[in-house]
Amino acid sequence: MNKLLIVGTVAFDAIETPFGKTDKILGGAGTYIGLSASFFNLQSAIVSVVGDDFPQEYLDLLTARNIDISGLVKGGKTFFWSGKYHNDLNSRDTLATELNTLSDFNPVVPQNFTNADVVMLGNLHPLVQSSVLDQMTEKPKLVVLDTMNFWMDCALPELLDVMKRIDVITINDEEARQLSGEYSLVKAAAKIHTMGPKYVVIKKGEHGALLFHNKEVFFAPALPLEEVFDPTGAGDTFAGGFAGYIAQSENVSFENMKNAIIYGSNLASFCVEKFGTERMESLKKEEVVNRLKQFRALTQFDIALQ
Amino acid sequence: MNKLLIVGTVAFDAIETPFGKTDKILGGAGTYIGLSASFFNLQSAIVSVVGDDFPQEYLDLLTARNIDISGLVKGGKTFFWSGKYHNDLNSRDTLATELNTLSDFNPVVPQNFTNADVVMLGNLHPLVQSSVLDQMTEKPKLVVLDTMNFWMDCALPELLDVMKRIDVITINDEEARQLSGEYSLVKAAAKIHTMGPKYVVIKKGEHGALLFHNKEVFFAPALPLEEVFDPTGAGDTFAGGFAGYIAQSENVSFENMKNAIIYGSNLASFCVEKFGTERMESLKKEEVVNRLKQFRALTQFDIALQ
Repeated sequence: MNKLLIVGTVAFDAIETPFGKTDKILGGAGTYIGLSASFFNLQSAIVSVVGDDFPQEYLDLLTARNIDISGLVKGGKTFFWSGKYHNDLNSRDTLATELNTLSDFNPVVPQNFTNADVVMLGNLHPLVQSSVLDQMTEKPKLVVLDTMNFWMDCALPELLDVMKRIDVITINDEEARQLSGEYSLVKAAAKIHTMGPKYVVIKKGEHGALLFHNKEVFFAPALPLEEVFDPTGAGDTFAGGFAGYIAQSENVSFENMKNAIIYGSNLASFCVEKFGTERMESLKKEEVVNRLKQFRALTQFDIALQ
Repeated sequence: MNKLLIVGTVAFDAIETPFGKTDKILGGAGTYIGLSASFFNLQSAIVSVVGDDFPQEYLDLLTARNIDISGLVKGGKTFFWSGKYHNDLNSRDTLATELNTLSDFNPVVPQNFTNADVVMLGNLHPLVQSSVLDQMTEKPKLVVLDTMNFWMDCALPELLDVMKRIDVITINDEEARQLSGEYSLVKAAAKIHTMGPKYVVIKKGEHGALLFHNKEVFFAPALPLEEVFDPTGAGDTFAGGFAGYIAQSENVSFENMKNAIIYGSNLASFCVEKFGTERMESLKKEEVVNRLKQFRALTQFDIALQ
C-alpha cells in the first residue's frame, strides 16, 4: 500500500456562520487533510503537534481512520483559531489566532514514513515544510504544498525556497495574484511555474479549481449546493482528496491529476455541508462515489466537432 | 434552414477599460447576439431601432452576416451607452445612458419571421419582449429571454408576465439572487423555475455559467484567458451562441442545451479579446471549432467509478 505523509495543524477551531456557532471543536489543516485522504486505500501519517489539553477522543478519531499519529507530539496548549463568516460565506474575519504549542514546532517524520510516496505539506511555516522534506530518505513521487498569504507577507524568502522543492502548489486565487503580481490567473500560474512547482492548482472556492501544467489547463467545478453551511476546512479537504487520490493511484501524470482535483472538489463539497469535521466524520465511501456521478453529469458534454 | 428571431438594441457604445478607451463604436445586445448567432447555419433577423445618425457601414456589417434587418426601424437618435470598467474588469460604472429613439420603440416582427423556430429576446423592456411574442403566428420551439436588474427594479410585474411565456431565461448571478430573494444559486434557480422558465441559465462571467432544469444542473466554464480586454457584450454573445446553436440543431433537449451553453461560452471567450465587436467581426468558424477542443480538454475527465 502506498504511503502518504501529511504535515499540518491539528487544532481547535471556534466557528461562527450565519447558521450557528460552535465552541472549541476539532480543526486544523492536518486534520482535514487526513480525514479526506482516509477515503483512499493508502497508509497515511500526520506530523503535527497538539497541547496537553487536546482530548484523547479526537486522537482516537484519527487513529480509527487508520492515520498513523506517531509523529504527532504533545505539549503545552493546542493551537486555536476562531473565525466568523460573513453572510455570503465567501469572506470571514479571524477573531483569534493563538499559536500556542505551534510556535516552536519541530516536525519529526516517523521512520517508516521517511520513504513516503506522496508528501502533502499543509499550510504551515515554510521552514517547517522544508524540515519535513529534509527528513525524507527517498525522493517522494510527488510533493504537494499548500500555503497562504500570511507566509507571503512574513516569510517570503523561506516560502520561495521550499517552493523550489515541490511538484504541486495549491493556492487560492487572491494568493496566486499576490504571489505572482499578475491579475490574470493564466499569467499568475505561468509565473508561479517559474518559481518551482510544475503543477499549479488555483482554488476559487465556490467557483471551483484550476489545474495548470505548462500550457495545459483543467478545471474542476465546485458542486452547486443548496446550502453551504460552513466553509472551514474545504481547501484542506480538497488538498487531502487530491493528494490521497494520487497516492492511491500511484500515477503522477497530468491526466490523473485531473481526476485528483475532481476527487478533491468532490470531498470538499461534503465538508461544507456541516460544521467543522462533522460531515467528514459521518461520510461513507459510497456517498463519495455517488457524487462523482453528479460531477460527471455537471461537466461532461458531447459536441461533434464540425 | 431554421429561423432565429432576435430582438435587442442596436446601439452606440463608448467603452473605457484599463487597456484603452473607444469613441462611439457599434454596440447593443441585438448586435452581439446577431454576430454570435451568425456562426451557425440558420436564417436570422434582428428587430430593433436605430437613429438617423446610425452609419450605413454598421448596417452593412450585419447584412454581410446574412442577418435580415427589415425589422430594424430608423428615426431620431441612436441609443447610446457609455461605461468605464474597474481594474479587475468584473465591475463597471455606467457613465451615460441615452435611450433616445429606444424610448418609444414598437417592435415589428418581419412577416417571414413570425414563424421563427427560436426567439431570442435580448435585454429590453419586458413589454417590448412581450410584444414580440404577441406577433408570433406559430408557437416557437424555444423562447430565450435575457434581462437585467434594471427591469426588476422598475418593471417587475411586466417582467414576471413575460417570464410566464418563455422557456429559457439567461440572467447573471447577482440578478438571479435579486429576482429570487435566494442567495444559493441552486435555490435561486428553483424559485425562478416556478416563475415560468423551465430552463434557467445563470451567468457568472469569468466563473462560467450554470444551466438548471428541474433537479439537473450543467456547468460550462469560462475559458481561462491570458488577458480579458473588454467584457462588453460577452453576456449577449453567450446568449447568441446558445440560441444560435439550438436553432441550428433544432433540438431543445437538456442534453443539447449543454452543448449550446458550451458554444455560448466559446463564442463569449472570443468577444472579450478585443474592444467592442472587433473580435467577433474578424472571427472565423475554424477558430470557434478549434477552441471547442480547448473546452473539452478543460473539462473532460475519465474517472473509473469504484
